[in-house]
Amino acid sequence: MNGKGIVTLLTDFGRQDVYVGVMKGAIATINPNLQVIDLTHDIPPQNIAAARFCLLNAYGYFPSNTVHVAVVDPGVGSQRRGVAIAFEDGFVVCPDNGLCSGILEQKSAIAAVELTNSQYWRTRHPSSTFHGRDIFAPVGAHLANGIPLRALGNKINPDSLIKLSLPSIQKSSGEIIGCIQYIDRFGNLISNIPGKLVRNRSWQAVVKDITLASGMTYSNVKLGTAIAIVGSHGWVEIAVNGGNAQQQLQLKLESKIKIKFLEDKK
Amino acid sequence: MNGKGIVTLLTDFGRQDVYVGVMKGAIATINPNLQVIDLTHDIPPQNIAAARFCLLNAYGYFPSNTVHVAVVDPGVGSQRRGVAIAFEDGFVVCPDNGLCSGILEQKSAIAAVELTNSQYWRTRHPSSTFHGRDIFAPVGAHLANGIPLRALGNKINPDSLIKLSLPSIQKSSGEIIGCIQYIDRFGNLISNIPGKLVRNRSWQAVVKDITLASGMTYSNVKLGTAIAIVGSHGWVEIAVNGGNAQQQLQLKLESKIKIKFLEDKK
Amino acid sequence: MNGKGIVTLLTDFGRQDVYVGVMKGAIATINPNLQVIDLTHDIPPQNIAAARFCLLNAYGYFPSNTVHVAVVDPGVGSQRRGVAIAFEDGFVVCPDNGLCSGILEQKSAIAAVELTNSQYWRTRHPSSTFHGRDIFAPVGAHLANGIPLRALGNKINPDSLIKLSLPSIQKSSGEIIGCIQYIDRFGNLISNIPGKLVRNRSWQAVVKDITLASGMTYSNVKLGTAIAIVGSHGWVEIAVNGGNAQQQLQLKLESKIKIKFLEDKK
Repeated sequence: MNGKGIVTLLTDFGRQDVYVGVMKGAIATINPNLQVIDLTHDIPPQNIAAARFCLLNAYGYFPSNTVHVAVVDPGVGSQRRGVAIAFEDGFVVCPDNGLCSGILEQKSAIAAVELTNSQYWRTRHPSSTFHGRDIFAPVGAHLANGIPLRALGNKINPDSLIKLSLPSIQKSSGEIIGCIQYIDRFGNLISNIPGKLVRNRSWQAVVKDITLASGMTYSNVKLGTAIAIVGSHGWVEIAVNGGNAQQQLQLKLESKIKIKFLEDKK
Repeated sequence: MNGKGIVTLLTDFGRQDVYVGVMKGAIATINPNLQVIDLTHDIPPQNIAAARFCLLNAYGYFPSNTVHVAVVDPGVGSQRRGVAIAFEDGFVVCPDNGLCSGILEQKSAIAAVELTNSQYWRTRHPSSTFHGRDIFAPVGAHLANGIPLRALGNKINPDSLIKLSLPSIQKSSGEIIGCIQYIDRFGNLISNIPGKLVRNRSWQAVVKDITLASGMTYSNVKLGTAIAIVGSHGWVEIAVNGGNAQQQLQLKLESKIKIKFLEDKK
Repeated sequence: MNGKGIVTLLTDFGRQDVYVGVMKGAIATINPNLQVIDLTHDIPPQNIAAARFCLLNAYGYFPSNTVHVAVVDPGVGSQRRGVAIAFEDGFVVCPDNGLCSGILEQKSAIAAVELTNSQYWRTRHPSSTFHGRDIFAPVGAHLANGIPLRALGNKINPDSLIKLSLPSIQKSSGEIIGCIQYIDRFGNLISNIPGKLVRNRSWQAVVKDITLASGMTYSNVKLGTAIAIVGSHGWVEIAVNGGNAQQQLQLKLESKIKIKFLEDKK
């Protein structure tokens, strides 16, 4: 592996407790020279859908061989599997609960294993409630250290990994119907409609019977005005220039959004 | 010292201001190659008891020679001492206000000093309100760099360090009475009863006249049901599978919890 | 450049989303050995004044050659310039919107460029809404790697950078009138009156017709009592020993504060 190993962490552990710090301690105990980068620890508790979105949208911006450790794990202590998945350009270590399914929809996994080899855990007797510390972080550190995936446990078929799919979008010639899949800190409403479906076309977004302007960026409209754009994550999203679209439009997760294509008047 | 020096930070400074960033600047000015790991900065302002709990429960998961800098410091600018304490497997640098007393109850200090040698401070004229930046972080960085403890100031007797003790638990043959010592982000209620007192026995927890199931992990009970377990920190704690025990049971810090041992029916 | 390159990040992106993690991914893709330090990501959305204050008050505590990447950017996607500014002891990379003007009032810029050279961006086709990821973080990483400022784009006159000035203070022989410029997590009220104007004099602060004690540190007064001090940032500030001055005094940003000098009775 070239350069310094990188491990990212994505959890719902928050930051008020020491859970995240302790995961970093477990990693540093294996190799203090690894670089650990926080994706976020503020996933709403046990919200796998939000974690799936965040992991998918961060994955592409890291160097090859980065190991992403993602722990939103309502099934900890049950029979759910812990897994490590290899892609051409990186690794994901997580509970098998759909967390990685956004990436799996976009990329083919090269290989996957169930984390059965306790040699790479923090202890052979992990707690029943904190696998982030006892299994996932240590396994991620060993992987970033260059331990091969196959050493971590029994090989499994990537097709057997649990999928968590978004509500599907409905496409017709004149319109697309989708929904809000994520709301960010700024109140931007991110839909499940890929930006590539609207690029180079003339379109408007309709929510709650309100037709919104569409454009390239917030500042294409006046302060306080809502606009539909293709956001930085690559999805159609609704924002308010200098404001909060969620509050202004009173939309929520899974609220419907419709794209209307305009006739070409060229 | 083998490998890269590690400094952890635990404060009540929050993250909205630049106080924590500035402590890291002070450390990087001494040695930019030290690894700095956040334990938490969201201790409730000036809550030494919560800081004591968090430091104790993180301490054991770091490599030997890690330097833990902990600053929850309502007495800053008064005559309270700043201290550095050496244990067999690490160091703590903090105000002498009870913050380290959880660790001191479990481990013997090898040596302790009062931080009197201003040569290792950021400035010989520290502010009277921000010793985290001016004294504790720089001292922690020098210690992680390999400066010996004795160089940092006058030797003191570890027995003279201020102790902040938990309410003691009351044990009888059939039961143990303790209290809630910490509540985490998930609303898990962590008691002051060590898990080792219940292991391998048959027991139930009683709070507010409600008898709870006990088990190994959340998922031993149905969604929405409260359960008493030995948590990942090693204390008896009360959780709700898929829910928030604090909200559901309306308990708070220092609320009473009773363990009843069941007769052995084997 | 001696030692390890340091990049600090200051944004209003919050931590619940992966925006900050993705900026760190963009930096690690350029050089995984850079050290990245968070100043804060909890600037209130689009509040340039708060960002200006935080950047100014953190800047002085970092090693020479540190690169500070600051992104509070309500004008992203408009014609506002992205800039990099060199000072004798460090660099700032930010949108040209006043964010750096606190530092510019205290230090002379050596040179400044507009970020026009897309060779140092993450992509030649940056998104129109997330220049933090696509332009500012990558440019900061290259600068910390030793790429010279002049390579980053067209030279501009530092005098042309946008200034965001504080309301000015009014000085007379017997008093100074200023205002609150920032309120921190503890509710400390930080004024725009430099501490050097009161040092070695006898003074009192008056807010809302209440005359406050002045002193060196919180613990000079009883618990629950408000006191005016010269805070750790170097400004006159109002604190409450063991309490929250904002809540107790019901002051807010831009509330008036008056310093009265007492006659010398020596």
